Amino acid sequence: MSNDPSLALPIYVINGPSLNLLGERQPHIYGTETLADIETICHDAARDAGTSVVFHQSNHEGVIIDWIHEARKKGSAILINPAGFTSTSIAILDALLTFDGPIFEVHISPLFKRDEFRHPSHISRAATAKIEGFGTIGYRFAILRAAALAA
Amino acid sequence: MSNDPSLALPIYVINGPSLNLLGERQPHIYGTETLADIETICHDAARDAGTSVVFHQSNHEGVIIDWIHEARKKGSAILINPAGFTSTSIAILDALLTFDGPIFEVHISPLFKRDEFRHPSHISRAATAKIEGFGTIGYRFAILRAAALAA
Amino acid sequence: MSNDPSLALPIYVINGPSLNLLGERQPHIYGTETLADIETICHDAARDAGTSVVFHQSNHEGVIIDWIHEARKKGSAILINPAGFTSTSIAILDALLTFDGPIFEVHISPLFKRDEFRHPSHISRAATAKIEGFGTIGYRFAILRAAALAA
Amino acid sequence: MSNDPSLALPIYVINGPSLNLLGERQPHIYGTETLADIETICHDAARDAGTSVVFHQSNHEGVIIDWIHEARKKGSAILINPAGFTSTSIAILDALLTFDGPIFEVHISPLFKRDEFRHPSHISRAATAKIEGFGTIGYRFAILRAAALAA
Amino acid sequence: MSNDPSLALPIYVINGPSLNLLGERQPHIYGTETLADIETICHDAARDAGTSVVFHQSNHEGVIIDWIHEARKKGSAILINPAGFTSTSIAILDALLTFDGPIFEVHISPLFKRDEFRHPSHISRAATAKIEGFGTIGYRFAILRAAALAA
Amino acid sequence: MSNDPSLALPIYVINGPSLNLLGERQPHIYGTETLADIETICHDAARDAGTSVVFHQSNHEGVIIDWIHEARKKGSAILINPAGFTSTSIAILDALLTFDGPIFEVHISPLFKRDEFRHPSHISRAATAKIEGFGTIGYRFAILRAAALAA
Amino acid sequence: MSNDPSLALPIYVINGPSLNLLGERQPHIYGTETLADIETICHDAARDAGTSVVFHQSNHEGVIIDWIHEARKKGSAILINPAGFTSTSIAILDALLTFDGPIFEVHISPLFKRDEFRHPSHISRAATAKIEGFGTIGYRFAILRAAALAA
Amino acid sequence: MSNDPSLALPIYVINGPSLNLLGERQPHIYGTETLADIETICHDAARDAGTSVVFHQSNHEGVIIDWIHEARKKGSAILINPAGFTSTSIAILDALLTFDGPIFEVHISPLFKRDEFRHPSHISRAATAKIEGFGTIGYRFAILRAAALAA
Amino acid sequence: MSNDPSLALPIYVINGPSLNLLGERQPHIYGTETLADIETICHDAARDAGTSVVFHQSNHEGVIIDWIHEARKKGSAILINPAGFTSTSIAILDALLTFDGPIFEVHISPLFKRDEFRHPSHISRAATAKIEGFGTIGYRFAILRAAALAA
Amino acid sequence: MSNDPSLALPIYVINGPSLNLLGERQPHIYGTETLADIETICHDAARDAGTSVVFHQSNHEGVIIDWIHEARKKGSAILINPAGFTSTSIAILDALLTFDGPIFEVHISPLFKRDEFRHPSHISRAATAKIEGFGTIGYRFAILRAAALAA
Amino acid sequence: MSNDPSLALPIYVINGPSLNLLGERQPHIYGTETLADIETICHDAARDAGTSVVFHQSNHEGVIIDWIHEARKKGSAILINPAGFTSTSIAILDALLTFDGPIFEVHISPLFKRDEFRHPSHISRAATAKIEGFGTIGYRFAILRAAALAA
Amino acid sequence: MSNDPSLALPIYVINGPSLNLLGERQPHIYGTETLADIETICHDAARDAGTSVVFHQSNHEGVIIDWIHEARKKGSAILINPAGFTSTSIAILDALLTFDGPIFEVHISPLFKRDEFRHPSHISRAATAKIEGFGTIGYRFAILRAAALAA
Repeated sequence: MSNDPSLALPIYVINGPSLNLLGERQPHIYGTETLADIETICHDAARDAGTSVVFHQSNHEGVIIDWIHEARKKGSAILINPAGFTSTSIAILDALLTFDGPIFEVHISPLFKRDEFRHPSHISRAATAKIEGFGTIGYRFAILRAAALAA
Repeated sequence: MSNDPSLALPIYVINGPSLNLLGERQPHIYGTETLADIETICHDAARDAGTSVVFHQSNHEGVIIDWIHEARKKGSAILINPAGFTSTSIAILDALLTFDGPIFEVHISPLFKRDEFRHPSHISRAATAKIEGFGTIGYRFAILRAAALAA
Repeated sequence: MSNDPSLALPIYVINGPSLNLLGERQPHIYGTETLADIETICHDAARDAGTSVVFHQSNHEGVIIDWIHEARKKGSAILINPAGFTSTSIAILDALLTFDGPIFEVHISPLFKRDEFRHPSHISRAATAKIEGFGTIGYRFAILRAAALAA
Repeated sequence: MSNDPSLALPIYVINGPSLNLLGERQPHIYGTETLADIETICHDAARDAGTSVVFHQSNHEGVIIDWIHEARKKGSAILINPAGFTSTSIAILDALLTFDGPIFEVHISPLFKRDEFRHPSHISRAATAKIEGFGTIGYRFAILRAAALAA
Repeated sequence: MSNDPSLALPIYVINGPSLNLLGERQPHIYGTETLADIETICHDAARDAGTSVVFHQSNHEGVIIDWIHEARKKGSAILINPAGFTSTSIAILDALLTFDGPIFEVHISPLFKRDEFRHPSHISRAATAKIEGFGTIGYRFAILRAAALAA
Repeated sequence: MSNDPSLALPIYVINGPSLNLLGERQPHIYGTETLADIETICHDAARDAGTSVVFHQSNHEGVIIDWIHEARKKGSAILINPAGFTSTSIAILDALLTFDGPIFEVHISPLFKRDEFRHPSHISRAATAKIEGFGTIGYRFAILRAAALAA
Repeated sequence: MSNDPSLALPIYVINGPSLNLLGERQPHIYGTETLADIETICHDAARDAGTSVVFHQSNHEGVIIDWIHEARKKGSAILINPAGFTSTSIAILDALLTFDGPIFEVHISPLFKRDEFRHPSHISRAATAKIEGFGTIGYRFAILRAAALAA
Repeated sequence: MSNDPSLALPIYVINGPSLNLLGERQPHIYGTETLADIETICHDAARDAGTSVVFHQSNHEGVIIDWIHEARKKGSAILINPAGFTSTSIAILDALLTFDGPIFEVHISPLFKRDEFRHPSHISRAATAKIEGFGTIGYRFAILRAAALAA
Repeated sequence: MSNDPSLALPIYVINGPSLNLLGERQPHIYGTETLADIETICHDAARDAGTSVVFHQSNHEGVIIDWIHEARKKGSAILINPAGFTSTSIAILDALLTFDGPIFEVHISPLFKRDEFRHPSHISRAATAKIEGFGTIGYRFAILRAAALAA
Repeated sequence: MSNDPSLALPIYVINGPSLNLLGERQPHIYGTETLADIETICHDAARDAGTSVVFHQSNHEGVIIDWIHEARKKGSAILINPAGFTSTSIAILDALLTFDGPIFEVHISPLFKRDEFRHPSHISRAATAKIEGFGTIGYRFAILRAAALAA
Repeated sequence: MSNDPSLALPIYVINGPSLNLLGERQPHIYGTETLADIETICHDAARDAGTSVVFHQSNHEGVIIDWIHEARKKGSAILINPAGFTSTSIAILDALLTFDGPIFEVHISPLFKRDEFRHPSHISRAATAKIEGFGTIGYRFAILRAAALAA
Repeated sequence: MSNDPSLALPIYVINGPSLNLLGERQPHIYGTETLADIETICHDAARDAGTSVVFHQSNHEGVIIDWIHEARKKGSAILINPAGFTSTSIAILDALLTFDGPIFEVHISPLFKRDEFRHPSHISRAATAKIEGFGTIGYRFAILRAAALAA
């Protein structure tokens, strides 16, 4: 695949419920950066890797599934921070299982240090890789890796 | 109840998340038939049984609940393939529990041969009957039975 | 395979313990139809599908295993209502695993609504498909499907 | 019901696998009395209670189920020592559930003091009462009670 | 904070899936009062406490999350009857965890007497208090308490 | 039933072990109000509702059971804060199950936020309703509701 | 040991919490006989067996333990209906483990048919034998057996 | 004991359900040798060890129990491949517990690499030793060891 | 705090159910020393440490709770051998949690070698330290340590 | 802290058992790169980040613990691929808990897609972040992040 | 492969912790033979099978892993008695998974009759076959089989 | 045994992984005393008891096992603080089970108040006694008791 960003399919970055509040909510867990900051990080990383990103956030499970379906046609990779849907949504898992490219699961804070009920991840069953606790820079690393795999 | 399809209330056929991709995704599990093929099977079966169907698919749990509520007034039976909501949605279960007619749970592939975490079905708690692994013909059998019970 | 019933191998219909009492026992669960009624349903369905059935019932696990072994040579498909052996007999499961044709698990009433200890089915591990809660008509649907698959 | 033993239906006493070896095997658990001694105890108790017993033992689950079916027509009560089938046979449980009269579960030694895996009893789900650890006199007490209930 | 209702921020009352059917569905569990009756109870209680309520119901998890986000800016307290989302929605829990004011979980019927799978409440992890089984008057008590805490 | 408090049977308010130390122990969990304050709240609420209360506290499970037995004859409702007996005493549960009137379970702090081993409540199996985390005002609400139901 | 009741040590019959209400409470489970009726049954059985009984009931676990300690010196056997203490009191179990004579656990109704949480019995770990579901006649049978063993 | 095979009691070799199909079924798990081949291996091993074997196979649990009972009188050791009864038959376990000589449990393929539900072995509770995954030569080794122990 | 025993508050030594029988019961587990011997050990240890003890034993959970409450005002430390209440009494745990000084849990025999159901200790949740299996000298060591901490 | 690599403390990279075989073993899981390749990746990353690495591998748990202790004095961060010790070594966890700097857990392949028994990670309890399934590039990303945090 | 022992690669026999004490420790479980006796048995068996053995024992997990790595180059098969590492060492399992030849797990005594916590074997996940309870002769049988498979 | 320390075999004091860091790590859990302080405490206690100690610490499980083996010949008792090996090392347990003298398990802080996964102790299965939460003085008490038992 060409590295020309005008040719390559973009990477879909999909953020789950309440991530629109990043920077406002529980900063001792999630830090002070906002979702807009993360979007900038993603665009920068994509540019560095010679690709582009489509950046989304929704509190609606169905909307997230719709975007994943769309990515089947229009995306080269998916990067998902499923937030509260991580351990509850088999429907999102099933949507991801229909996607042929690489899938990255990103968590800003280390999930394995939070409540026990948040540990099991349905999303991981479809993921190529997972990165947790790296803060917002985790998005950058996932995009770099996704671009390399999709290239 | 009359068997005149112009009089009888239709059977609501409700399909859950990612079933719009049938025929495109994981054909080794789900086969090559599409959702449109299933819709045809359902209309044919309904006609044979002297009734009609309202046919739906959504990736949105809330939309599915809305349709079930609608069926309380306008439907004689519900046939549901809950897909990824099978073992996670108590909200859909609760909606189904408000429905007085027969409810059929249909799975194209045998759920009991897939991942362990897919086995327990919340939907079954409200179902009259369940059919798994019959392929798309399972929809036909469920509609025939639903029509017979609702007649 | 020819559809000429005089040529096709029959479908083995095997009924487990206490099903000989159907119609006499717990009619609120199992209805008033007898095993003889079911046998008629099976023969009718087989005739409609251009095949035939061998119809059996036993309270003896070993006898059921013997019949499954026999079906390996003389049957095109197996339809089994394992009744009380559903969740206890690995020996019947092992016998079914030696059978190459399609296997249908039939339960007259919905197993998933009865006691918790009846839910896990060893038999399902060998089954092609399962139908529950359709009443005796479930036998008919399973035979139609078995004949189609074996044809 | 008359107390005239020539008129009353007998109590079926059914003994499970390896109980034919009573008195020979593990006397520190089961004592030195034989199954013949127990049969005498049962006949004596039945005579005292103005009824009679049909006394059986088998190592074959299917045979035990057949006897339970027979008792539906010819017996007033069932007294069963299910031995090794206690926690494994749902098929015997299902047969017992078709029986309308009182059912007594008898264990010579206290089951609750033996291996953990022997504790859960499927048979109890159909039983009217249970007596454990009374030695062979437990059969007598169960017959006296059965006769009183069936009278 | 002033008790002048024209000044105080309102209490958000959020009702989960199928609660729009109250009074129509399963009256032996939920009684015959409708959601409109509850809305009246809430407005009356708020007026008595010198505050006001914003009253919502939705079958869509995402919509409920959106309302909770809105309450962060415009509400003084949240009263939530999560219905079928009680034990499945970590996404709603996460939204509630971003809210600084008091949160009340209300169930009309006693949850602890219904199905086992309904017992664990994700919502409770964010709740200040919980009231169950008081019928619709539970809404009134929760609003009185919320107003007192928020005052 | 008349609302004349001189005629109506009183509501029994029963407090479990160590609640006599309220206000002295762990004020970050239970606040600074004493049991005497709660007694006053209860008498006030009862007066407002046109009834009366009998108010008790004991560290002895047997004494609590005796009071419940007494309430069968002399009380119209029971309000119980079982404290440390909540998840351990089947004996108190059994006593409550002999009581015909409404039973309210009250916890000052939200039980669901404390240690996991405190969550399952045997008492709830007999309760009409439960209120947790409302502080001492929870007693008032429970008495108002009890009086309404018993009236 | 002599069978002269004036010489033999009596059998201690100890009844647990709320059994003083027998005949008044939940007659569909426990029947209409009172504890006084059971005391008569016990005295009659003891007389028939040439011994005597000391008959007790308490709602206080500690009092029951005190009686068991007393029986170590003054009793030949213990018959205990632990009621609500059956699955919760290790303290009563420990007291029983200090007793050298035979111990009988009696339940009027079949424990194994009631709530799951009532099934495991700590008391059984010290018991010689157990009888459940025989109604009040279970006390008689236990006393006859106890007298035989202690003779 | 003499090594003269005409004097020594034979070793009972008992094969469980569906082992009659060895060589025909699932050769990727069980290989291509037949039960007749195994019988030859056993006779050869017995001759080498100066003893003899009685060789059996049955699909009937009761028949297997009868053979074990017979071995109590006529056998020096038991070698059992319980197949599908391995983890389900407490009745066979109980029969084996009545046998005084050495007992060998043989599995051709390694049980520990097959389905989880096949792992726990009731039979092992009575076994002297167990050999798994050695293929048919495991029978030879078990017979050599049995003969040495029984000699 | 002064080491003058006439000034220091005493250490409360509280012994649980059936410990009054020490020396009489199960000497293979508990040895032959009596509770009076232990009381002497405690007084000696206290004297050596320049403090004093209040020594109690009861079979009544409520009485033990009352003593713990008393110790809040009159004791410097608590040493408790909860015996049969170790893993069942949350009420005693709650009482201990109201005590500010050090709490020692003492078991004469090693609890971790006895029955599995005795292992989890509710009492430990409030304890400063635990000593098991040291025999009666464990009381001495706990008092020395308690005195040192309370000094 | 200065970015001058001659001044900054190095990052300790510690590899667990059998990682010395990388590139030779199970290449379908771990790829064809060797541990030497990873060492190069680490040195390159460290140089890019202005720091250095100390690179280790051992099959001995104790040696790994010794290195972690050493890093307390001589290292700025720890990057550990615990391999087979991931879910078994509390001793390594305890050593890591004594380290004040950031700790990164790296797995080349996605642990969450391998055997269930490999999922729970003791190491994670001490980790700042975790990266899985990124292949060997995961080491680079972890070092970049570690250097940034330690800078 | 040639059967000439001077050409064939040897079989690695690896013994786990405390097996150096064989014959000295717990002879009622392990018998009186020493590890030297077992070494002789292994050399004899290898000679009979036309091969040789390298014989090791260590109390150090890391040393055992090193030997397994060595066997990858220099051994034809591995026979391992993992002793105390059986159910705890995933690191040894991982080392074994890198070995291409047959692997035999040997236990002198029947593991399945010892403590429950010893039952699950991580080692078995890599083993070709397992032999337990045959005493030291189990080593001989495993070597004979290993030589046959490796030949 | 003589109390002359020149004659008595010493007590082996064995400390597990990371205990060499005592006083440096997590002082809020372990306090500020160092392992050297504990060694002094042990020598002092031994001298007071007329015996001596051999004092060890290692991060290597195998080394600890070697020391335990050595103690079989040269030690009178073992005092072990297994630290991180407490709940993971069956190999150390097995080594301890070969030791005939008394074994004391010592934990400085109360294990039962730390993480759940640290609670189950394999070491306890071999221990004579256990002392937790006494701080470093626990070593002294264990040595005094060990000397008394070994004397």
